[in-house]
Amino acid sequence: MIIMKKDATAEEIKNVVAEIKKHGLRADVSRGEFRTVIGLVGDESKISFAHLAVLPGVKEARTVEIPYKLISREYSELFDGKDESRIVQIGDVRIGGEKPVFVAGPCAVESKQQLFRIAEEVKAAGADILRGGIFKPRSSVHSFQGLGSLGNEEAREALGWLREAGRKFGMPVMTEVRGEMQADLIAEYVDILQIGARNMYDQDLLGRVAKLGKPVLFKRHFGAGIEEFLSFSEYIVAEGNKDVILCERGILPVGKGKGYTRYTLDLAAVPVIQKESYLPVVVDPSHAAGRRDLIFNMSCAAIAAGASGLAIEVHYNPAEAKVDAQQMITPDELKEIIDTCKKISNTVKTHRKKVKI
Amino acid sequence: MIIMKKDATAEEIKNVVAEIKKHGLRADVSRGEFRTVIGLVGDESKISFAHLAVLPGVKEARTVEIPYKLISREYSELFDGKDESRIVQIGDVRIGGEKPVFVAGPCAVESKQQLFRIAEEVKAAGADILRGGIFKPRSSVHSFQGLGSLGNEEAREALGWLREAGRKFGMPVMTEVRGEMQADLIAEYVDILQIGARNMYDQDLLGRVAKLGKPVLFKRHFGAGIEEFLSFSEYIVAEGNKDVILCERGILPVGKGKGYTRYTLDLAAVPVIQKESYLPVVVDPSHAAGRRDLIFNMSCAAIAAGASGLAIEVHYNPAEAKVDAQQMITPDELKEIIDTCKKISNTVKTHRKKVKI
Amino acid sequence: MIIMKKDATAEEIKNVVAEIKKHGLRADVSRGEFRTVIGLVGDESKISFAHLAVLPGVKEARTVEIPYKLISREYSELFDGKDESRIVQIGDVRIGGEKPVFVAGPCAVESKQQLFRIAEEVKAAGADILRGGIFKPRSSVHSFQGLGSLGNEEAREALGWLREAGRKFGMPVMTEVRGEMQADLIAEYVDILQIGARNMYDQDLLGRVAKLGKPVLFKRHFGAGIEEFLSFSEYIVAEGNKDVILCERGILPVGKGKGYTRYTLDLAAVPVIQKESYLPVVVDPSHAAGRRDLIFNMSCAAIAAGASGLAIEVHYNPAEAKVDAQQMITPDELKEIIDTCKKISNTVKTHRKKVKI
Amino acid sequence: MIIMKKDATAEEIKNVVAEIKKHGLRADVSRGEFRTVIGLVGDESKISFAHLAVLPGVKEARTVEIPYKLISREYSELFDGKDESRIVQIGDVRIGGEKPVFVAGPCAVESKQQLFRIAEEVKAAGADILRGGIFKPRSSVHSFQGLGSLGNEEAREALGWLREAGRKFGMPVMTEVRGEMQADLIAEYVDILQIGARNMYDQDLLGRVAKLGKPVLFKRHFGAGIEEFLSFSEYIVAEGNKDVILCERGILPVGKGKGYTRYTLDLAAVPVIQKESYLPVVVDPSHAAGRRDLIFNMSCAAIAAGASGLAIEVHYNPAEAKVDAQQMITPDELKEIIDTCKKISNTVKTHRKKVKI
Repeated sequence: MIIMKKDATAEEIKNVVAEIKKHGLRADVSRGEFRTVIGLVGDESKISFAHLAVLPGVKEARTVEIPYKLISREYSELFDGKDESRIVQIGDVRIGGEKPVFVAGPCAVESKQQLFRIAEEVKAAGADILRGGIFKPRSSVHSFQGLGSLGNEEAREALGWLREAGRKFGMPVMTEVRGEMQADLIAEYVDILQIGARNMYDQDLLGRVAKLGKPVLFKRHFGAGIEEFLSFSEYIVAEGNKDVILCERGILPVGKGKGYTRYTLDLAAVPVIQKESYLPVVVDPSHAAGRRDLIFNMSCAAIAAGASGLAIEVHYNPAEAKVDAQQMITPDELKEIIDTCKKISNTVKTHRKKVKI
Repeated sequence: MIIMKKDATAEEIKNVVAEIKKHGLRADVSRGEFRTVIGLVGDESKISFAHLAVLPGVKEARTVEIPYKLISREYSELFDGKDESRIVQIGDVRIGGEKPVFVAGPCAVESKQQLFRIAEEVKAAGADILRGGIFKPRSSVHSFQGLGSLGNEEAREALGWLREAGRKFGMPVMTEVRGEMQADLIAEYVDILQIGARNMYDQDLLGRVAKLGKPVLFKRHFGAGIEEFLSFSEYIVAEGNKDVILCERGILPVGKGKGYTRYTLDLAAVPVIQKESYLPVVVDPSHAAGRRDLIFNMSCAAIAAGASGLAIEVHYNPAEAKVDAQQMITPDELKEIIDTCKKISNTVKTHRKKVKI
Repeated sequence: MIIMKKDATAEEIKNVVAEIKKHGLRADVSRGEFRTVIGLVGDESKISFAHLAVLPGVKEARTVEIPYKLISREYSELFDGKDESRIVQIGDVRIGGEKPVFVAGPCAVESKQQLFRIAEEVKAAGADILRGGIFKPRSSVHSFQGLGSLGNEEAREALGWLREAGRKFGMPVMTEVRGEMQADLIAEYVDILQIGARNMYDQDLLGRVAKLGKPVLFKRHFGAGIEEFLSFSEYIVAEGNKDVILCERGILPVGKGKGYTRYTLDLAAVPVIQKESYLPVVVDPSHAAGRRDLIFNMSCAAIAAGASGLAIEVHYNPAEAKVDAQQMITPDELKEIIDTCKKISNTVKTHRKKVKI
Repeated sequence: MIIMKKDATAEEIKNVVAEIKKHGLRADVSRGEFRTVIGLVGDESKISFAHLAVLPGVKEARTVEIPYKLISREYSELFDGKDESRIVQIGDVRIGGEKPVFVAGPCAVESKQQLFRIAEEVKAAGADILRGGIFKPRSSVHSFQGLGSLGNEEAREALGWLREAGRKFGMPVMTEVRGEMQADLIAEYVDILQIGARNMYDQDLLGRVAKLGKPVLFKRHFGAGIEEFLSFSEYIVAEGNKDVILCERGILPVGKGKGYTRYTLDLAAVPVIQKESYLPVVVDPSHAAGRRDLIFNMSCAAIAAGASGLAIEVHYNPAEAKVDAQQMITPDELKEIIDTCKKISNTVKTHRKKVKI
């Protein structure tokens, strides 16, 4: 990280950037109110910090030890004296702002009729964003992989429904990008690109999706520590895309015996990440629990822990869903959850300010 | 499990019990409104269910597959048609009732002055029960093991302070029993006996503590699945002591890299256990987080998840605590947490009833 | 799975295949000595087994519950009465045969000189296959990502060196395919395509690499259970590519405190997988241990557990390696390991046959 | 740790010890060839190192950061310039010496006939030590807890058989001590006291068993990291008992889906612990695997990894064992394992010396 002097000229800044590029790295220039900070993106071993430190206009050149400097709160504070959380804005929806945001929809888009009915009902229940899986990541090659996997035509058709449903019911739409080859196609149709838990480590996919210029909802892998999660989200931001929404969706359970939930929801990750990074954090209680009778409790807990929103799977008739039927809730249940969570959010935010730690 | 006929006589019941004892097992007789159910405690392979089934007055003899039948909600429903959660009552304090209960105090009792000052301040902040460690389980033999470990006299003195502080400030008191040899001594002085996470698997200690006839706060081991946790709590109830408070305090973290918390708080365990067992569940956010700046958020989350109470470590000056200084909060912070949690609890309970799953 | 009658005609088989395709699934036809078995690949919920069962020539139509039927030993036994392990053959090298196979080379290819010197020395030490990373998966975007990541030209140049070194020293060569976009390019140059642990769940990459018609070395993700590992290897075999070498390389460590190894090598996975699947299993002790002083012991242990080979990172001067320097061993150490492992393999194979379980 | 000057007098040493005791700690005095080193046992925060450093005869007073200094190889090297592994000797059996040692016997002692027949057959197969469970730790209170749990008389009788079988067939005997109350009784009868995995954290039990003056086989908890395992073994050595045999028996498995083994055998723990501590390490493949068809492979792997011995459960008719029937092997299989392991041990030891890391 190169911290420029207050009075560094545009020419001096340009010069430092050129020097960085000469060594095969990229430069992330942040012009703050007080000073300009240049982040290095790429293999830092290829460049001499001692050399950078003596270039004209440079105040300090230092290595940032944490592997996620571009998304870190500490780094963002540095250059303009502000410690601001990022708000990802899509139309009227603000993720990371004062109010919690609710993403809802079917696990998998199965038909136009199914999607539109669910879209209408989740909107009525208070949802802000519509989600629906078209390319589904599955453990078994012998399971339904989503309409998108049936062919290009089917993918376009399903993506078209999603866009149409979003417009009709006034919600931005989100779907998962599972492979690099589908990224461009999907970006034509949706407002938020989701990277699923299983693809968290797929740095080529991350880079590709980042470049599409749309907000990215990035899910934590169930085997990833928080440091790894943040390090891989850095791959997205390193492409210049800071509209990243981090999503906790459960980690591997510990211990022997019967598994009562699919994954273990790590809610402490919410305040921990908020202290480390300025990016907003949401929670997906559906995949973590894997059973509908826990969604109410875990949604309330996630918001109480400070999450900026929830992503919940909803179906008007859970029993007939083709994927993850056992974890779907109904629109009525969603409404109750949204109402409760809004109240909890208010209570928690009011009191949280009084506690100084 | 032996389900007696509705009109089974006292003689017939006695006869079945005798038959069970003859094979070296114990019998847990539950006389319900509708019928009497006799639970078998011990090695069931030593007795023939077919033989029991034909004894006079027996309606049905069946094996219960789950390893925690004595504490299971299903089993308790069976005999009197009621599905009731157990309320553990100590004086005026009701754990498992409508209102959340707050246990607070220092990690380790260090002096009379320290304990009394903390007791006074946590009471003022709204705490219901006073906790304080006298025999401390520690990873290293080279660390402070609590005043109790210094000798019998010191143990008695510290236990005496605890009892006195509880009486003076009107709170029942709780401390941990770490080894079988200390159990009788401790039971003389305190109202609730705690079994720590590290001793969860110590079935001899469990049996011994259970027999002392006092409520037991039983902590989940950080490597234990929920089924194991419930199976070992069965060791306490098998001694006839149903005043067991289960406590979630964090499980082993998953993933590589920096650990931001000591353990991973598994809040889904709260509603899961509530569905499996009639015993109340509380949460200890202090040991799970291991850092004070997460206690507010995780306390709110625990109550939102449905916990019947919290156990929090408090010190008027965290920096000077001998053990776990980094996770102590101040009495002021405790007050804010208690106030917020009470509001959350009200909101959640009101809405939860409307959701039928 | 459709089991045809012994005397089923080619016409009848064709007919069943057509019926399967009509429903959007693929058919994996295995003509055995005794009978023909047709495996279904794809979403089985879309087809009626009852309907298939009554087609002419069909003896039985049954669902296979395990999610990895195409690679399962049980399934392969079924159709020709043989229980044979698959031998993946590349030139003279036979993976899965009587003798253990040794893959060795640098973690990352850094220069032609470096690669050629290592190739020469590992060959002299007894290595069978040359490995070298050109596209490196890294936790941090700020670390060296391999020569391949510098651009297309650099990638081609490094891949060319690898091919040339392999030819010069008489070893097939292997490198990792990290993203879908690089798959075709890499397949032009190397003999074995590696899919790294972090990409294990990337089903689109798996499908793409499978289709390139070359043997695939498939590494287990550090958060994956064995069932998941096998289920995802099914994605490769489902494309008709049965030349899959499974590789155990360590799973997430358990427990608190200092990490003495990077991952926990799960050596029981070797015999477990050998009982479940006919595919060969090799072990990578380098990434599991993350430190060179354990490689000898863990290599011996892996071969003693029954592994068909080892993949080991080697450098003539470990200290100067750009990636994973601390886990490289020297060619001299490799030679000692290979010599010892060959003896252990002989001893174990001779005695193993006498034990009937 | 206090390092005395070479020419420190007995008086000076005595004086330092007295000073340590005055602060409530114990002193572990090691008189080496070159100098005397005094280890502190207990809460080090209670004593001033600066003060100790200026006592007559003291060369240096330093804090040892690792939590297991008394068992560490580094510490033992310090005082006499020797880096020696400890050999635990019981009669003719030397654990930690050149030859691997084999502990075998039934999981649970069920009758005199059963024990004697197994003792005879494991001896013939080559076993060195006889094991047999009398107090069994069990997950469910409703399972068979061992003959010892039936009462004092039964315990004495079963312990008597064990002693008698050991004498008759010429093997030292070992059984598990599960609770503090049984420790004295058991020590009357057996040669090696086992502390089971579930009791690893039970520091009061550890201290009590340590004091009985017999060798202790100490098993790693399935949720414990290596550092924790070593830290708790320090509780035994802190009582002056250095005859501790460490035992790896599997840790919690990672990942979703079917469990193919009960635990994950962490064989890298063997060389890791050997580098950290001078205590011998053995492996229990039976409990780790939980299935008999893996015992051969994992036994070979453990010895190849460098283990000083194995503890294996054996029954002449596994199907009739009351506990853990599925993991028992027959005496014939044991013989094959012992023969193979001895050969592997020879091969590995010969070659290992040539590798300098």
